[in-house]
Amino acid sequence: MPDASGNTAYDSLEARFRRIALVGEAGAVLHWDYATQMPEGGAESRADQLAELQAISHTLLTSVETEDQIAAAQDSAASLDEWQAANLREMSRRVRRARALDEAFVTKFAKACSATEQAWRRARAESDFAVVGTLLAELTELVREKAVRIGEVLALDPYDALLDAYEPGGRAAKIDPVFDDLAKFLPPFLEEVLAHQAKEPAALAPKGPFPEATQRDLGVKFMEILGFDFSRGRIDVSHHPFCGGVPDDVRITTRYDEDDFTSALMGVLHETGHALYSQGLPADWRLQPVGDALGMSIHESQSLLMEMQVCRSRAFLAFAAPVMRETFGGKGPAWETDNLIRLYHKVERSFIRVDADEITYPLHIILRYRLERAILAGDLQIKDLPTAWNDTFKSLIGLDVPDDANGCLQDIHWFDGAFGYFPTYTLGAMTAAQLYQAAKSQDAAIPSGIEKGDFAPLLAWLRENVHSLGRRLPATDLLTETTGRPLEAAPFKNHLRARYLGV
Amino acid sequence: MPDASGNTAYDSLEARFRRIALVGEAGAVLHWDYATQMPEGGAESRADQLAELQAISHTLLTSVETEDQIAAAQDSAASLDEWQAANLREMSRRVRRARALDEAFVTKFAKACSATEQAWRRARAESDFAVVGTLLAELTELVREKAVRIGEVLALDPYDALLDAYEPGGRAAKIDPVFDDLAKFLPPFLEEVLAHQAKEPAALAPKGPFPEATQRDLGVKFMEILGFDFSRGRIDVSHHPFCGGVPDDVRITTRYDEDDFTSALMGVLHETGHALYSQGLPADWRLQPVGDALGMSIHESQSLLMEMQVCRSRAFLAFAAPVMRETFGGKGPAWETDNLIRLYHKVERSFIRVDADEITYPLHIILRYRLERAILAGDLQIKDLPTAWNDTFKSLIGLDVPDDANGCLQDIHWFDGAFGYFPTYTLGAMTAAQLYQAAKSQDAAIPSGIEKGDFAPLLAWLRENVHSLGRRLPATDLLTETTGRPLEAAPFKNHLRARYLGV
Repeated sequence: MPDASGNTAYDSLEARFRRIALVGEAGAVLHWDYATQMPEGGAESRADQLAELQAISHTLLTSVETEDQIAAAQDSAASLDEWQAANLREMSRRVRRARALDEAFVTKFAKACSATEQAWRRARAESDFAVVGTLLAELTELVREKAVRIGEVLALDPYDALLDAYEPGGRAAKIDPVFDDLAKFLPPFLEEVLAHQAKEPAALAPKGPFPEATQRDLGVKFMEILGFDFSRGRIDVSHHPFCGGVPDDVRITTRYDEDDFTSALMGVLHETGHALYSQGLPADWRLQPVGDALGMSIHESQSLLMEMQVCRSRAFLAFAAPVMRETFGGKGPAWETDNLIRLYHKVERSFIRVDADEITYPLHIILRYRLERAILAGDLQIKDLPTAWNDTFKSLIGLDVPDDANGCLQDIHWFDGAFGYFPTYTLGAMTAAQLYQAAKSQDAAIPSGIEKGDFAPLLAWLRENVHSLGRRLPATDLLTETTGRPLEAAPFKNHLRARYLGV
Repeated sequence: MPDASGNTAYDSLEARFRRIALVGEAGAVLHWDYATQMPEGGAESRADQLAELQAISHTLLTSVETEDQIAAAQDSAASLDEWQAANLREMSRRVRRARALDEAFVTKFAKACSATEQAWRRARAESDFAVVGTLLAELTELVREKAVRIGEVLALDPYDALLDAYEPGGRAAKIDPVFDDLAKFLPPFLEEVLAHQAKEPAALAPKGPFPEATQRDLGVKFMEILGFDFSRGRIDVSHHPFCGGVPDDVRITTRYDEDDFTSALMGVLHETGHALYSQGLPADWRLQPVGDALGMSIHESQSLLMEMQVCRSRAFLAFAAPVMRETFGGKGPAWETDNLIRLYHKVERSFIRVDADEITYPLHIILRYRLERAILAGDLQIKDLPTAWNDTFKSLIGLDVPDDANGCLQDIHWFDGAFGYFPTYTLGAMTAAQLYQAAKSQDAAIPSGIEKGDFAPLLAWLRENVHSLGRRLPATDLLTETTGRPLEAAPFKNHLRARYLGV
């Protein structure tokens, strides 16, 4: 823990938030175990354990004592250094958010999420929105109430109050112009890329089977190349890949398909990007709010920088393709470097977000962003959601959605009460492009390293300019300080043009 | 959770102890993860997480509010049923134990344990008692202080105050006569068995290698035969085998030696005995003190009943040997059933407790029990421990201890502050013999089932007579109620005579 600040109330807060963070860390390990190890019969106990840890954190966070300490610490904030001041700001933000909702509401909300999510699983399996429609309508009422309550406390519009949970400082007014820009740029660009790719040889899929153990070894080899520290982390299997654990013990997961190694491999490199961020968070500020990851868009920028900017680049794939061939003993045209690059650059209109390429992906996001804003504003009724989804999908991506499982039922987020999360995926993609452009221009050893599988210069740059900063700066300031510009779509558009049209 | 009792204070206590139990469960999962999954670099974070969870429990347990609620609940205890009354008794016991020690002492004690344990690891590696002697002397001063403080609160002798933590209701005055009996019986009996075995063919060790995966499959097969519910548990690898997790998600561990499958297999069946107890604890009383395992001797009786009474029996090994042969494709004299039985019945004087057979094991325990009582009473100085150990070892087991690593440095217990634990191993072995004798005489389907690998009758008996009782009765009452007699050495001695001399 950092030295005492001389501000007694602030020092007490550090002790209190340390406890809150440790309870949260315990929860993170339990969640990893739930997803990777736990037998079915442990589910009820595990839910009880996690709920209890959350209740303990919530009690610590919302106690009158905490509030009093924050007021006292703010009164003598002049004695704090820059990190401590940022820490206190973040403490205050968390307490205000938590205190905006009383316990009865939190319980009611959690129950509504759980009921809606369960109905959603059935609805998606049966591709029948009616199964979950009423519950989702009730849940969105609660989401709106939550948004209004938090918004009142933080002086934010309701949508921004939700967004701010995932993206501190994020505002719809800043997102709108960028997303509008992309929504105009991407559809014609997509047409152009599809026409361009139609003239190239078709990408061939290497033939398996690719044993899980061999895929795992290959993933580990590349994780090591990227700089993952295996003395402070692991890789395991779970149904939905994620990056969890704690900074000194980061747990990433993937799932393997023995007929196709390419998808799991890129998934592993994506999660490794998240993991490197966690492993690089400021060690001096472990267990303090200011030592946390900055927000979801910066987190996603770290995974997408590794996956989309670097590992799917022609330069890196030229280095990686021979490793893949050697690992699986691959021979023939499907294993040629050019073909593997074509495979990893293949663009296609499709219905499912998580399977989308990097050109259509933002269109999937813009669709969700527009609809969730309309729902929050009361401009879209839940009963009209499937139609609105399908219409918007047609206009943005150009396909007729065949059923709700391929449409508005595909993602868990809304059915679990998570509104305001979706835009961070595409903010992350844009941030990744802007950061990587800056990195390459600031250190020529970065791109030349990637060609040889040497990630040390890139990792050093990310450690210095992103990871080690924790939450000292808001995301917008971090980007301006690091790249000289606020977030804009241009680097992302340039990246897409260069990769997919060679211009 | 059970119905409301009509005793408001008692109902509040149930809610409070539920929270304490869930925090404890979270800790149990973190501990399992620590031993089986965690990368090295996570150690410091994990220690912090576990310490924080313990601090949270301790605060809940020792708060004035808890004490007031217990007093109020006791005032209207007449409204409680038998289980609730037992639950309240157990709550009160835990609170009194916890409140006997102030936080400063608990911290000082934990630090002394940690420092002594670390020095012990070096001392054992170097086989040099001097490395840890001073620290152990300081630690035992604290142990004595702890014993006196708790003893004052619970009106117990200092040694009993420590023993009572592991064995509620356990008293040295009850252990002494039984251990004296064994200490007289075992040395000449051991001579007799060694002479008897010297006349038999030597036991041959089957030749490996025995691949870890095959050993694991064999262990799982036998765990299923014993009745382990894999929807509520797992088996994994750790350096020191243990049974952990929570009742609906029991985690047992083992370690495999590819040159010898017999030891890991019996270890797995031992831990399965512990696990079946956990899985059979009363579901209606989950997360309440009365729903917990009764104490260490009953816990150990469940593992030793499975391992020593049942799985090492001639009847079971005759069923199991063909399965072992088939699993490893074993052929020749080493794989014959009679030889495998001889292997599992082999008796030998040796220095290390955890490797000892069931005849010499109690002598290892009696040695430790006598020395720790002398230390606590101030009759044995720590500086004289190695000599006292070696002298007692010679008189009980008849060997000259060659060095301290094979002597007083072999076990972690004392160096981690755990005095009063050792006797529970042998109390468990005796309890196992007495329970199994009663089980066989009460249901003839039990022994005939074992011959066919059908454990259902045995498990049903254990569920009804031990597992489902939780802590409703003290261990002594449970034994009297189930077997008609208090704990005595006779069934254990009969078991040894029958197995090793055929009389």
